[in-house]
Amino acid sequence: MRYGFAKRVQHLQSSAVRDILKITNKGDVISFAGGLPDDELFPVEAVQHAFTKTFESGGKAFQYDATEGYAPLREVLVDRMGKKGIASSVDDIMLTTGSQQAIDLFARVMFNPGDIVLTENPTYLAAVQVFQSYEVKIIPVETDEHGMVPEDLDDKMKKYKPKCVYVVPTFSNPMGKVWSLERRQHLLETAIQKKVIIFEDDPYGEIKFDSSQTYTPISALDDGSHTVYTSTFSKTVVPALRTGWIKGPHQIIRIMAQAKQAADLHSNSLAHHALYHLCTDFDLNGHIKNLRRTYYDRMKVMQRLLDQAELPGLSYTVPKGGMFFWVELPEDIDTTLLLNTAVKKGAAYVPGAPFYVADAKQNTMRLNFTHSTQDKIEKGMGILVEVFQEAASMEHEYQKTN
Amino acid sequence: MRYGFAKRVQHLQSSAVRDILKITNKGDVISFAGGLPDDELFPVEAVQHAFTKTFESGGKAFQYDATEGYAPLREVLVDRMGKKGIASSVDDIMLTTGSQQAIDLFARVMFNPGDIVLTENPTYLAAVQVFQSYEVKIIPVETDEHGMVPEDLDDKMKKYKPKCVYVVPTFSNPMGKVWSLERRQHLLETAIQKKVIIFEDDPYGEIKFDSSQTYTPISALDDGSHTVYTSTFSKTVVPALRTGWIKGPHQIIRIMAQAKQAADLHSNSLAHHALYHLCTDFDLNGHIKNLRRTYYDRMKVMQRLLDQAELPGLSYTVPKGGMFFWVELPEDIDTTLLLNTAVKKGAAYVPGAPFYVADAKQNTMRLNFTHSTQDKIEKGMGILVEVFQEAASMEHEYQKTN
Repeated sequence: MRYGFAKRVQHLQSSAVRDILKITNKGDVISFAGGLPDDELFPVEAVQHAFTKTFESGGKAFQYDATEGYAPLREVLVDRMGKKGIASSVDDIMLTTGSQQAIDLFARVMFNPGDIVLTENPTYLAAVQVFQSYEVKIIPVETDEHGMVPEDLDDKMKKYKPKCVYVVPTFSNPMGKVWSLERRQHLLETAIQKKVIIFEDDPYGEIKFDSSQTYTPISALDDGSHTVYTSTFSKTVVPALRTGWIKGPHQIIRIMAQAKQAADLHSNSLAHHALYHLCTDFDLNGHIKNLRRTYYDRMKVMQRLLDQAELPGLSYTVPKGGMFFWVELPEDIDTTLLLNTAVKKGAAYVPGAPFYVADAKQNTMRLNFTHSTQDKIEKGMGILVEVFQEAASMEHEYQKTN
Repeated sequence: MRYGFAKRVQHLQSSAVRDILKITNKGDVISFAGGLPDDELFPVEAVQHAFTKTFESGGKAFQYDATEGYAPLREVLVDRMGKKGIASSVDDIMLTTGSQQAIDLFARVMFNPGDIVLTENPTYLAAVQVFQSYEVKIIPVETDEHGMVPEDLDDKMKKYKPKCVYVVPTFSNPMGKVWSLERRQHLLETAIQKKVIIFEDDPYGEIKFDSSQTYTPISALDDGSHTVYTSTFSKTVVPALRTGWIKGPHQIIRIMAQAKQAADLHSNSLAHHALYHLCTDFDLNGHIKNLRRTYYDRMKVMQRLLDQAELPGLSYTVPKGGMFFWVELPEDIDTTLLLNTAVKKGAAYVPGAPFYVADAKQNTMRLNFTHSTQDKIEKGMGILVEVFQEAASMEHEYQKTN
């Protein structure tokens, strides 16, 4: 039988990252592809303890729960976000199946086909996928190392009258950048003036390398009416619990809760109970400090290897936090074409092209430094450098003989 | 700031059942409203044991997983569905956040605005909510105690050319009915002939009271090309784990997995690992037998109380399984209007009207018999009968004096 699918299926694409994950999960490939934390650093004992405490509290934790999620965990989040300067109340927060679901439900209740969203370029590709699946038109704003370039942002705000600006201002995915305070303020002021909502996606904010630095969330600068903010426990605790949250104007959260009722009634609430116990009994901030240190050391190893790589034309930004290096290679290197060769030789990355909303650069790639030990980073980077050197020299030969 | 929502938000409604649950969760109300299993019967120890085993297996279970869900649990489901006569392979199954998400993702990839779905009337209201949120037109098919009436089904298949027929053929929600084999076969034959897909929703199939009876799923009669089948661990193990699954033609499941990637990457996979251990180490079938016995006894208590209620005009169907009585009251009783009074006096139910796709009967209600102990059923039914008797006699007085 031939099945007639919905038109919106045309706009669904499988994620390049998740497809690569499928390959790399199968063998001995050293993968710098996914945005994965390190399995070895998961606080398994603390999670186990938190579940034990949940089980001891009896059957109630096993029953259906409110769509918005377990209220005491939302209270913990009010407190944790408060320490970042974001004022909220329990009613403004909904727990979601990872922050991915927060993006999806937001898009579901906000966007009609043809609506416009401004984004950085490149940006988080799974957000773009969601927006496209709702037939949203995505317009990239020129972006430099400090954030969106004000002139281009102002122009595009005026020209396109967007409904929303989607940003990852702190340790952005894929570029690992941090927006300056001025750029954050400028975006917020413009959004208020033009009555546009900012979607601030902050999965990596806790993974910062210079503890003396404060990167104020845009949502902390706002009175709460022009920003929605999402984050997750996936990077700080464990991904498998699939617990993220969204904070925003109550009117939006309320409608999103109705959409979530239809989508899945509620997320896994046993996980909510366990995360509540974990946040109250366990030194989560201490754990995050350990993650920062280990990930910083790994980042430094990868940085050294990038510096030592004899690849003229290679450039990168030093990440101030998060999980990724964004690398630009010599212009004639196509990372999409070379991925297969790299995987065969035993190392993987994500080609940069899929992260672009427009004007994709084929000579870019994203490298994750959190999932692999220093030894593996050494080995995997050795493989990658070899692959790219070979490609560069072949390209060179080709140019000589033609 | 005024927020501009998507047009589809107009089609989103908060579920009557979930709204009532919010009220009844606060206080001492005896609730026959939700489709809740009994907290006291949850296999807490077995779940705890299954999680312990998961924790012992180390960090891998805590990492991001495939969108389709943990493969060994899908293998267990191949086996369990096989015993019901449904042939499948791991690749035809996707794990979802409850079967609610299966309905939502299916609708998302299949339906364009204006597409037509045939349903029973009344039917599962949260499925109707999902379909409506995708602007699907729902056409009710005349339904008697054996299932959809063949003549009306044939007429409506011809007249409306639906894309899908949505059914809950075994212990239907809300009516607690079981379709006859003939009606199942007729629906399948018609669907094959007209190239229409059947969505078989089977959350309650395991909760059957006569163990000598076999109710063959429609999917077991099919070669796998014209049916999708969904079920859940919410009723047999615990709801909080939010683990359901969908089985269907690979082509549909594959596209649904792409939609799920965008929706939430994947469901809570720690729950998948735990459920895998639970299914292999624990006598789940024995546990289900206990549930059947306890729920059967409670159903019988409620039946006796309905029989004893002095409410001329009351009628109901004896459920052969599942969780609900569907009750019709004297015609002049409006259960929606009386709910508030009942809750104030200490007992809740769901008015029947919201379950209807057309021609709602205001004098109907759904009563859950699984969540409350026999004592509570006695007490709660006492309250309800009193409320309805009072309403009937007031109505009577009113008619006399006018």
